Amino acid sequence: MTTPTAFRLFKQVPRILFGRGALDRLGELLPAQGWTACVVDAVHREGPIPARLAAHDVEVFWFDAAHEPSTDQVDAMAALVRAARAEGPSAILGLGGGAAMDVAKGVSVMLTNPGSASDYQGWDLVPHPAVFKLGVPSLAGSGAEASRTAVFFSGDRKFGINSDHSMFDAILLDPELLAGVPADQRFHSGMDCFIHCVEAVTGTMASPLAHAHAGKALELCEAVFLGEGSDDDLMVASYMGGCSIVNSEVGVAHALSYGLSLELGLRHGLANCIAFDALDAFYGAHVETFRRMMARHAIVLPRGVTRGMDRPAIARMVAMALRMERPLVNALGEDWRAVLTPERIEALYARM
Amino acid sequence: MTTPTAFRLFKQVPRILFGRGALDRLGELLPAQGWTACVVDAVHREGPIPARLAAHDVEVFWFDAAHEPSTDQVDAMAALVRAARAEGPSAILGLGGGAAMDVAKGVSVMLTNPGSASDYQGWDLVPHPAVFKLGVPSLAGSGAEASRTAVFFSGDRKFGINSDHSMFDAILLDPELLAGVPADQRFHSGMDCFIHCVEAVTGTMASPLAHAHAGKALELCEAVFLGEGSDDDLMVASYMGGCSIVNSEVGVAHALSYGLSLELGLRHGLANCIAFDALDAFYGAHVETFRRMMARHAIVLPRGVTRGMDRPAIARMVAMALRMERPLVNALGEDWRAVLTPERIEALYARM
Repeated sequence: MTTPTAFRLFKQVPRILFGRGALDRLGELLPAQGWTACVVDAVHREGPIPARLAAHDVEVFWFDAAHEPSTDQVDAMAALVRAARAEGPSAILGLGGGAAMDVAKGVSVMLTNPGSASDYQGWDLVPHPAVFKLGVPSLAGSGAEASRTAVFFSGDRKFGINSDHSMFDAILLDPELLAGVPADQRFHSGMDCFIHCVEAVTGTMASPLAHAHAGKALELCEAVFLGEGSDDDLMVASYMGGCSIVNSEVGVAHALSYGLSLELGLRHGLANCIAFDALDAFYGAHVETFRRMMARHAIVLPRGVTRGMDRPAIARMVAMALRMERPLVNALGEDWRAVLTPERIEALYARM
Repeated sequence: MTTPTAFRLFKQVPRILFGRGALDRLGELLPAQGWTACVVDAVHREGPIPARLAAHDVEVFWFDAAHEPSTDQVDAMAALVRAARAEGPSAILGLGGGAAMDVAKGVSVMLTNPGSASDYQGWDLVPHPAVFKLGVPSLAGSGAEASRTAVFFSGDRKFGINSDHSMFDAILLDPELLAGVPADQRFHSGMDCFIHCVEAVTGTMASPLAHAHAGKALELCEAVFLGEGSDDDLMVASYMGGCSIVNSEVGVAHALSYGLSLELGLRHGLANCIAFDALDAFYGAHVETFRRMMARHAIVLPRGVTRGMDRPAIARMVAMALRMERPLVNALGEDWRAVLTPERIEALYARM
């Protein structure tokens, strides 16, 4: 980069339909022609979602979000979409949490680009524009609806496709879709937002614009989980948290949570909660707020998750964390290696 | 409209470059080919702006923002741009406050659409996509950088072009550009943001998303004008205030300020301040905050501006206010005519 200043171009989803019942206005956001491939979290097999989608010309591809998605799954899903009809879809819709939305992003990229999704993990590696895509969160917190990032496992790493072509062209934010989410999952996912916003506002990389988005999202998270905030507020928090990610960075919690997901198969929201709960030294007052939110919602985190792990597994987790350079610079400055040594990372994992 | 829910589609500027010195990265936002017609506030004739723009292939068209812009001015400026080179511009850049940015929006629309800009005042009346346009505020508060609205005088009315085609394709938010703004103008323009955000959060039409944007913008305005907030914060406030306008409505202050601009030629920011200062009955605590901000910055508003106006002029102002139906429904509900009678409007004007 030869740019004189370090801040990045801030991309935004150009069209948002926000409101209770917005799902019934899907037609306003979908292209006028062609059919839509819907990547939908399999929890919605039962319930009203399939019938509501079927009001449009769609094919539904169920995604099982019990585990975090991999690039292999994206490649397989893209092959299914290609095989579904002679003519390719004019739109991809992702409905679910961050995992389902990320898979939809990945599929839209793979329909117009050769090879495997794993070829595009990194920054701005996607050469061709993707198929039009629409994000519909039914679980709030990941911010995937607002960001350029689509995170996937691939071999021994968890890593994002970050491209203008992996950003939704439109999003539909319908707080009614959050109604049936189990309390634990709602909390873990909401804390994904809370934690990445804490990481943004306490780090060095957030622009004033990202800072404002993250600050408002934090305020809304606290209203939701400590006050009288509604699902509408949670939906806005998730969206604004996602906006903040675009022009800031995550931090120590995300750096450590990736290893937990990689080795233990823990979902991102839960892994973040477990990591954050061990990070008093880095995020003191915010960790206290987090614990008050847990207590208020009677959330019990699993304890001792790293107990009994073998040395190679622990070494892989430490290596994964040390690979998260940008988040750790954001959190701890250029000299982060002096603060967050492999030994200290291992000791933090031992507390989880 | 046959839509089952009343909320509107929320449009956003898809690309934002935010940061001190961003003006030197203009090339990242402009189209690769062709030339750029720059509509620039004439206050920048002196100073470094012309040389910085001349690093690109541009023609500068100076806009005198001493008065609010009219559709005639937009038509004349579009004719100048058409006449400047054999080939039309590939981009329009608007640099200045809300007036200059609105004129740039209008010119971009008129280069691809027939007739006069006055033909397109209203909602979604622009048939053809406009020329690519880039907004660069050098005065913060109007929110024109973020909104679909471009407001112009036309005959006896002040009215906006509101179209997807009147929204910027990219914006460059460089807080350094705010450095030389005179204190009065900075305050009046900043209060445009404060006032339309008060109108949004106290009204009935703001979605939770618009509410969040307006709430954060208000907090930043108070930090800037009562605390230690910086020009960076003011730039973010203006942008977020603009985002809130997209999916909310203004209220009584804007309804009354339009008449002041129409009859007395007062600029929008100042007219808003004069109107708001008379609206204790509608915006009580916020008016108190506004007065504390005025006191802190030693701002003295002109008094008795409507004194000596003749009956027909007062009648025109009242008629203009009564035409602002949506803002008044937002502020006062469907029965607003019972609350804000012509007599009451006249009495409010008499206080200004």
